[in-house]
Formats: sequence, C-alpha cells, structure tokens
Amino acid sequence: MGYTIAQKIIKNHLLSGEMTVGSEIGLRIDQTLTQDATGTMAYLEFEAMGVPRVKTEKSVAYIDHNTLQTGFENADDHRFIQTVAKKHGIYFSRPGNGICHQVHLERFGIPGKTLIGSDSHTPTGGGIGMLAMGAGGLDVAVAMGGGAYYINMPKMVKINLTGRLQPWVSAKDVILEVLRRLTVKGGVGKIIEYAGEGVKTLTVPMRATITNMGAELGATTSIFPSDEVTREFLKAQGREQDYTPLASDADAVYDETLDIDLSKLAPMAACPHSPDNVKTIEEIGPRKIDQVCIGSCTNSSYLDLMRVASILKGKTVHPDVSLSIAPGSKQVYNMLAQNGALADLIAAGARILECACGPCIGMGQSPNSKGISLRTFNRNFEGRSGTADGQIYLVSPETAAVSALTGVFTDPRTLGAEVEIPQPEHFLINDNMVVAPASEEEAASVEVLRGPNIKEFPATKALEDTIQAKALLKVGDNISTDHIMPAGAKILPYRSNIPYLSNFCFTVCDKEFPERCRQEGKGIVIGGSNYGQGSSREHAALVPLYLGVKAVIVKSFARIHCANLANAGILPLVFKDESVYGKIDQMDELEITNLREAIQKGGAITVKDVTKGFTFETEAVLTQRQRDIVLDGGLLNYTREHQA
Amino acid sequence: MGYTIAQKIIKNHLLSGEMTVGSEIGLRIDQTLTQDATGTMAYLEFEAMGVPRVKTEKSVAYIDHNTLQTGFENADDHRFIQTVAKKHGIYFSRPGNGICHQVHLERFGIPGKTLIGSDSHTPTGGGIGMLAMGAGGLDVAVAMGGGAYYINMPKMVKINLTGRLQPWVSAKDVILEVLRRLTVKGGVGKIIEYAGEGVKTLTVPMRATITNMGAELGATTSIFPSDEVTREFLKAQGREQDYTPLASDADAVYDETLDIDLSKLAPMAACPHSPDNVKTIEEIGPRKIDQVCIGSCTNSSYLDLMRVASILKGKTVHPDVSLSIAPGSKQVYNMLAQNGALADLIAAGARILECACGPCIGMGQSPNSKGISLRTFNRNFEGRSGTADGQIYLVSPETAAVSALTGVFTDPRTLGAEVEIPQPEHFLINDNMVVAPASEEEAASVEVLRGPNIKEFPATKALEDTIQAKALLKVGDNISTDHIMPAGAKILPYRSNIPYLSNFCFTVCDKEFPERCRQEGKGIVIGGSNYGQGSSREHAALVPLYLGVKAVIVKSFARIHCANLANAGILPLVFKDESVYGKIDQMDELEITNLREAIQKGGAITVKDVTKGFTFETEAVLTQRQRDIVLDGGLLNYTREHQA
Repeated sequence: MGYTIAQKIIKNHLLSGEMTVGSEIGLRIDQTLTQDATGTMAYLEFEAMGVPRVKTEKSVAYIDHNTLQTGFENADDHRFIQTVAKKHGIYFSRPGNGICHQVHLERFGIPGKTLIGSDSHTPTGGGIGMLAMGAGGLDVAVAMGGGAYYINMPKMVKINLTGRLQPWVSAKDVILEVLRRLTVKGGVGKIIEYAGEGVKTLTVPMRATITNMGAELGATTSIFPSDEVTREFLKAQGREQDYTPLASDADAVYDETLDIDLSKLAPMAACPHSPDNVKTIEEIGPRKIDQVCIGSCTNSSYLDLMRVASILKGKTVHPDVSLSIAPGSKQVYNMLAQNGALADLIAAGARILECACGPCIGMGQSPNSKGISLRTFNRNFEGRSGTADGQIYLVSPETAAVSALTGVFTDPRTLGAEVEIPQPEHFLINDNMVVAPASEEEAASVEVLRGPNIKEFPATKALEDTIQAKALLKVGDNISTDHIMPAGAKILPYRSNIPYLSNFCFTVCDKEFPERCRQEGKGIVIGGSNYGQGSSREHAALVPLYLGVKAVIVKSFARIHCANLANAGILPLVFKDESVYGKIDQMDELEITNLREAIQKGGAITVKDVTKGFTFETEAVLTQRQRDIVLDGGLLNYTREHQA
Repeated sequence: MGYTIAQKIIKNHLLSGEMTVGSEIGLRIDQTLTQDATGTMAYLEFEAMGVPRVKTEKSVAYIDHNTLQTGFENADDHRFIQTVAKKHGIYFSRPGNGICHQVHLERFGIPGKTLIGSDSHTPTGGGIGMLAMGAGGLDVAVAMGGGAYYINMPKMVKINLTGRLQPWVSAKDVILEVLRRLTVKGGVGKIIEYAGEGVKTLTVPMRATITNMGAELGATTSIFPSDEVTREFLKAQGREQDYTPLASDADAVYDETLDIDLSKLAPMAACPHSPDNVKTIEEIGPRKIDQVCIGSCTNSSYLDLMRVASILKGKTVHPDVSLSIAPGSKQVYNMLAQNGALADLIAAGARILECACGPCIGMGQSPNSKGISLRTFNRNFEGRSGTADGQIYLVSPETAAVSALTGVFTDPRTLGAEVEIPQPEHFLINDNMVVAPASEEEAASVEVLRGPNIKEFPATKALEDTIQAKALLKVGDNISTDHIMPAGAKILPYRSNIPYLSNFCFTVCDKEFPERCRQEGKGIVIGGSNYGQGSSREHAALVPLYLGVKAVIVKSFARIHCANLANAGILPLVFKDESVYGKIDQMDELEITNLREAIQKGGAITVKDVTKGFTFETEAVLTQRQRDIVLDGGLLNYTREHQA
C-alpha cells in the first residue's frame, strides 16, 4: 500500500507512535515560526526550559501582529523577542518585513520538511509541500528545544482538482468552495491533500491561499504536491536548491475524496459570521458596501496585489468605500513600489497600511457600525473586526478590488478580459530585515531586554497528592477560550504579562472571579460540555494556572484546550455521571486525595464535596504522555525532567 | 507708517475693532479647515447653528487623526463628517489623502487669505503667506456660518534671515533655533514674520515647516512673504492663478526683531520634554537610539522625504532601530511611488505607515520603555508618544534618517556632499480623494449618517439670574485642560461623544467628580491660578457644561480656556481677593443673585457662601462681546440670536 504526501513526511519524521488513525504520534520538527502575539510567551517558555540554543534546522521569530503600538508594551515585546532570538539561535524578522506565513513561504519554507508555528495559519506552508501545522506556544518551545510535536494520526482526505479556473475566479474561490462543502468542522482530525490535473494550473501563492484557509476547515493541515510549479517558485526566490519533488503514491489510500471542477467555480463570499457560510457574489446581488480590506496571510502575495493594481489602475475608489491594502511582505511591497503598481494603488485612493497582519486580527480598520466590509482575509467571526455589529464577507482580491470601485458587491467577471500577470522570473531578494542569531560563542554575551510588561512564565510544581480547594466558579456549556481569556486590541498587547491578563480571566462570566482567586489562593472550576472551545490560545490555561486553578471538572472538553490544561499542569477532569454537575454549587469545598496514584494508574478519580458530604467519580482523559506531564506539573517541567 | 504682511491681511479682513495691540478685533475668515479629532464636534456645533450652507470661500474637512480605527467609532465619525460636509457645502478630504496642513498647503491655501482651522498647527499655511490660525471647533463653526473670528490684536515680530543654510542643515533647524532663543512662551500674543535675504533661499515646504512649528512658540501665527518662490510652488501645483505677491512695507514697524544667520546654524534637536529644550546634535553626542519616526505636518513634504530616500538608498536601517515613515499626503506618497524613492525607503527597511498624523499624536508607534525616539514632529511633551517614560527628540528629516542608519545621534553633515533634489516643476495633481459638496439643490436630500458614538451637542440656555449650586470640586493651581478632559489613544476616539467623555472629566484629580455632578445636577468649580492651561481643546469646557457646571471661580485663567468657557456659556469668574479661595470648602452651597444685570453692567459679581455665611466679590474678565455670549448661554445661541 502506497503513501499519501503527508504520510510520507510523517513517516520520515516519526519519533514515536504508530501511524494508525487516531493514535498519538510524535514528530521531529525541522522548522518553527512564531509571531509576536504568541511569541513572547513561547520564548518565555523556551527560556524557562533552559535550552541554550534551538535544535531545529531553522527557527524564525516574526513581528507582524502587534504593530500598531499604541503603548510601550509592543515595542518592549519586539525588543524582547529580538534579543532572545539573537541569544538562542533564532532568526528574527523585523517589524515591517511582513506577515510570518507570507515571508516564510517566500524565504524559508522547504518541501517535505515539518514546520510548526504558534499561529493557526501555519498550514500556509502546505502550498510548497511542507507539513506545516499550527500549535500552542509551549509546543513550539518544546520543538525548538529538540522535543517531538505530538498529534493524533489524522485521516487523509484527497481533493481532486480538475479543469482550470475561469478568468477572474481565484484560489480564494476554491477554498471557499471547499468550506461550503465540508463546513468549518469538516477537516477536524484530517489532513487535506490537493491532487489532480487542476493542481498544475495553480501557482504557489494560489496553493498557499488554499492551504492557509484550510485552518478554517478545522483540519490538522493541508498540503499540495511539490512539482515543477514549486520548483519555478523556489527558483524565482533564488532557492532552487531547496526543491524536492513530492507526490502521493499511485496506490495511496485516502479516507475521503472530494472532486472539484475548477472551471465550474464562480466568485464567492463567506457571509457573516462564518467562513463556511458561502454564497456566490451573484447570489448576494449588488448590495451596497462600506469598506474593503485587502491583505492578510491569505491573500497578500505579489500576484494577488498585481491583479488588484490592474483592476484599480486609472480609477477611483467609490466615495462611500474605504479601501485599505496591506502588502504581505517587504518583498511584495518593494516589488510593487519598483514596478509602478503601488503608485497605481495610491492614485486610485487605496489606504496603504503597514506590511503586517493589521485589520485581519482586529488591529485597526474596524468598520463603521453595522458596516459591510469585504475582506480578503480568512476569518469573519462576529466581532473579530473590532466592530461588534460589523458584517464581514470574505472574498478574493479580485472581487474586493472591483467592488471597491463600484461600491456594491460585484462579480469580477464583469470586468471583461483578464490582464495576464506572469509569475516573476526573479523575485526581488533582499533579506536585510532578517537578523541572523549570534554565533554560539557570542550568544553568552547577548543581553535579553525585558520591558516592565514582560513577566516571567508562571512557576509550576509537581502535582500534589491531595487537592483541597473551593469550586471558585461554576459555568455552563460551550465556554470558549474567549470567555476564559478575552482578546482584542485592548488586551492583546499584554500577552506577555500573565499577571495583568489575570485581571480579565473569566470576567465575561463573573467580574469577581480574579479577586476571589486571589483571596482563596487556589480553586477548582466546574463547567458544562464543550468547555474550552474556539481559539487555541494557551493563555486560557496559563492565566487560570497563575490564579491558582488546580483542576477543571466538566461534562466534556474541547480537544486543544484540554491539551493546553495538561501542558500547564492543570488537572482536566470529566464527570463520569454528568448529573453530578447539578449537585455542586459554586464555593463548595472539594477534596481529591491519593491523586498521584490515581493519575499514574489511569483509573477513576474520586472527588469529595466536603460541603455537601457526598463523593463522585471523574476521569482524566489523557494519554500516558499527558499523565506524566500533569504529574510533573506541566509540559515545561516534564521537558526539563526528560532532558535531565 | 507702513504695514507688516500680517497687518495688511488683517486690515483687509477687519470686521470690527481697532488694530491696536491687545484690543479685540473681529476678522472675516476666507477659508476653514478641520481634522477629524476636533471636526466631529465642530460640525455638530455647525449643525446646531442651523446654517444650511457654509459662507466661507472654501471649507475643507480632513480625516487624518483617528485613522487607526481600533473600534467602530472612528469609521462612524468619518462617515458623519463626510455626509455633513456634503450637505453643507464643505469639501471632504478622504482618509488616506493626507494630513490636513500638508494637503491644504498643496491644494487650497492662497496667499493673503485668512484661514482658521480646528488644529493648533494651522499656521502651516503661513508658508505661502496666508494668515492661518488655530482655533476652537466652535470658532471654526461660527466662521463657517459667516461669523467673525475674534483675537486680540497681536504684536508684530520680525525674524530677519540672512545667509544660506549649510548642506544638510534644514528648515527644522531654523525653527529649533527660534525656539531655543524665544522659548515656548516667546510668541504669546505675537505674529512672527520672516524677512530678509535668507527668505529667498527657502522653499515653500521649508517655510511651512517653520510656520508650522511657530505654534510651539505660543504665537498667534507665523507668516512668510509671498514671492517668486511662492509663485513657483503654486505654479508647480497647477495653481499659478492663486498667486498674489505679499511683502511688508519698507517702513513697517515691528515690536521686536530677531536676526538669524542661516549659514551659522547646525543640526539640532529639541530634547525631552519641551520643544525649546534645544541642543546641537554635536552637543548631544553619539548616544544610542531606539526609534526614528519621520512624518507629521511639520516634515513630510515631497522634498523632505526625497532627501530621506537619498540618505537611505542602498543601506539598511540599524538592527536596533525601528524606523517608521508616514508621507504627508497622497500627492507626496504617489510621487515617491512613481519615481522609485519609495522603493528605496522600503528596501532600506523603513516601516511605511498610512499617510496620516500617526505617531505624532500618539496614534501608534509608541516607543519602548525609556526608549529614545528621534522624530521629525513638532511636540515632545512628556507622555505624548504613548510611552510615559519615552524620551522624544525633535529633529530634522536629515538627522533622523542618518541616525536611523547609524543607531546613534548623528550629524547629517557627516554624510559629505549633499544630493541636490530640485523642487519639482510639476507636482502630481490628482484630487480624486477630495469629494466636492452637493449642489445647493441636491443638499436637502443628503442624509447625515450618525453612528451610536455621535451624540448631539449639549443644549444650553440663556444665563439664569440666580445660580444656587454647590462647590462640587475644589482644585489647586496650574490645572490643565488635560486634567479637566484627558486625551490619548484610549479616549480620543470619543471626541464626538460628550456623554461618554464626561465619565473621565476631572477624574485625574477626583474619581468621584462625574458621579457627584450627576447626583447634584449642577455645580460650581473652585480653582487656583493659571486654571485651564495647555491644549486648546474645547471639550474641557463642553464636558463640564454637560455635567451641569454653571460657573468656575478661580484665582486666574489661562486665556484660551477662559474663552472656551464663555463660548460654552459657563461663567468664568476670578476672585477679587485671592485669599477667599482658602475659606471655601468643597461642597459649600454657593449663591449668586441679580446675575444678568451684573454681567451686563460689567461690575463686580457678589457670591454668597451660604454654608459658611459670608459673601465675596468676583469679576468676570470678559470683553463686551463675551458678556453677550455668556448672557445668551454660549456662542452657539449668541450666533443664532445675531442671525435672527
């Protein structure tokens, strides 16, 4: 039986486990990337591990999230990341150099290699045949220290592409079609591979748009073959030596297959408030719009923006529309500035933003109240734009550009003949905004600069044998990580300051929770089902850890958050009998004894409600590795133990 | 006796009063401008006046301050300003079109005309021989309605320029030298005119840099002659028809004269935390720096940025320095994008920000903790950068650019031979981002769009004959408008929302003040000397008005705030005997009777401290016009009365 592309890469990097769907496997990681919103914490964790120099082939620290800098915190974080990177063997991509995924694709990604990044859109690298996955900061820190990255072996899905896209229909429309058919849950536990004759018709940036937004399927990752198109791209980046061909075996077996005829696709939009709420532009009709934003790691490549420039050239953005454009990288920006396309964008009235993530993560350009905003981004969750009642539609750059001119939803096919924009034979190569790390000799003398906003990683200790603590909070079903640790432009600059963040922990549910934790010193959280859904932010575990939360007892957990709790050394327990949930009141005194043995054995864990005088059984749904992690007091301690 | 340039313009626009130093004169205003941070309120006030269409020759509404848009408020304000401008005959400069002063100079300013703007750097227009002054929003609203603008006739100061600047020494160094010699108080009550042979050696953008930063002298305004250099500039802007020659008479009399030999000037910096704390770069020495910001209405012209590009070309910004550049206008940006200079800036690693005020007003790019930041801006007040302990130095673009490369304070004269950059024969003219107002016929059907953040202007009524209210707050000396109404990136987006802003009124001094006002419904503020110093923001009067403040009784007032109180209909009183201040306690019940007659007569106003059982005398230091304004319940009502 042959292998799929992903299976081949996994096989080449397998450190532990068996390649059976659902079972835990440990992978050797070749490359890592971080961005600054998650990176400060990841490097604090890396420092806490005590490894002097990264053991990966290449690790890169990008600054692309907190670039508005409306307070000292961001610049301090940038300096911290720059100096910690220099000291520990990590390349540093300076602010202004571009969005991590775009730059990594251009300058560092290599077909057949593994990459994890502390950003959920790391699968962008699948566009050149990398096995590229998003991960928590601590997982990235461990990988930098030479540790394995653990996932459950995913199912394999083949998406078979035939035909060729019509003029003005683009890669964004391909992934929107996939989302329409598979939904935002359709990729969970799966790797999506693209195959078929249609693949050859897609450039690397187009492929990267598709794998990038595979994150919205919930997929572990997405991947394209590495072929002549890949070789040409790498060659134009001056990196032909990084090329390796990669294809699935003819007899590879997929768990699912999906066929898409590219020639049948029309320009589409993901309507509010979910990336899978997809309609064609024609179906939406010529509704009036207020804003257009072009950019983000999904659609800010040279080819994307050249097509936008060709549409806007000699025209003026509709008076009722604000159009912003953020190029994806300094390479893209510089090329547009050299060839006159940027002048065309400016002349048409586009607001050119700094080369960074910008509005995609709610960092600026929030639309007006109830404003209809067309964005080339990857997510349109309610409120993510910074405007609670903003109506965000995800579209291709072509749809975005033509609609900015007309002021209404407009199908770009109405533009007539397409302007042919060839892939450049040579990209402009100038890596002067990537700072190389210090040599091993110089590293010792590099001082890591910390601002007052950068606090130490919270210390943890081995799991105690007895937990005696009050149920300091009782919440209902579907608590998301946004409930546990809110984000947004106001709080995001504090991602390296767990003590400050702790003031906001659970305050959406209960304003008094942080203060109660401080008074009691320790506590247990009681929750319903699907506890911890949503974003993968590890801060939703680290902040409760800081506040003294010892265990979380719920009806069921969302997968990633459960892992994050274990990584933080917080005990994740589920009720054996869900009806017990109703018997416990907030502030009940709870007690768990003989805990270490129970965790080691893997059996039921008995909890006593001292206040009410009854006991009930719970279960820690953890792999053996995770049991050891919890016993050690979290992944950091565990990793240190294993190094010793 | 001949006239100075300013006296000629004043004479041509005099509506009331006599041109005797210190006496109130009323001026006809030809042009107005607003920016968005003050503009929303100015247009709410204009609407409240009930004038259907502006009566000025040209009024322009710019969007340049609140362009980060981290919430819905900014975009809502932009839409409000756009629609209210369209309805009432005002030109609208869309976000992305640039900084008001830079754009106005390029496209609208006319020698010999009067201009007031709701921004303190409006004197930039003096660079082409306009009488251009900063004013409160309500003053601008009144001028748009055809009313006069009142100032006290200023003294005339001549600055006689001789010689020619050395290579790499620039206009910024000229105004820094003026600030060094005159200090930040040196211009109060004065108009600064530049004269002498040296004037001819300065381009219009250089002159505009100098008049712009005349605001930091506290001057009413600054002005240059309109000469052949002016004609060439206007011609290159396609506006030769707007040219008028303007010079002072040979026998004009100045109150003061200052001589500056341009050839003797060296590159300088205004050191923390005042624009008059000036040292040469040589004196400062090669200290390490963290950040460089180039842009703002002071130094973001085409010539400024071309010189920066010539310095940065082919080099890389020092790894420890973050360099940001914000072009001053779309014209500048577009020309740099066309001629390759922008590509040079990007290649060198500059972070290119949106064409707007940006970091100059604390909107982003806050430096790191204790960070040393070199900025081409006009103000370096403590904390203005958004970083409380940031160390801001004001320098020329040339000094900024070379220091960004070396990473330390560097005198640009070390660069050797200067690259000659000629004034362009033709600027790139494309006004497609300026939206013309609706015609008078269409205006009625234009709907003004208001977001939930835009509240009505607080209603006022004629002065009551009796005030009975408690002394709800007692504060000490030197209370600034920042105490009364704090600003900053967190509060600035709410400048159109007086009810929301009221939650922050005086909270720096007393957190309970807003709530106490709400409970009592009305009140009086007791203050010390120099009450209301600092920024001219009218919100420091409008917010207390909203909270029910009827009168402010102090030892002495800062001039502009006193006028703003009168404009808002709040009674500004000073103690006849300062020692009475010590006898009044917060929460004493105060009473003033027969108030209208006392104000009309202009005599003493007796106040009774009901709680303590004593009376004391106060005085309302107001001109006759201001007495009428207070009697009518503020400038808005007064203006409506006079129209009727």
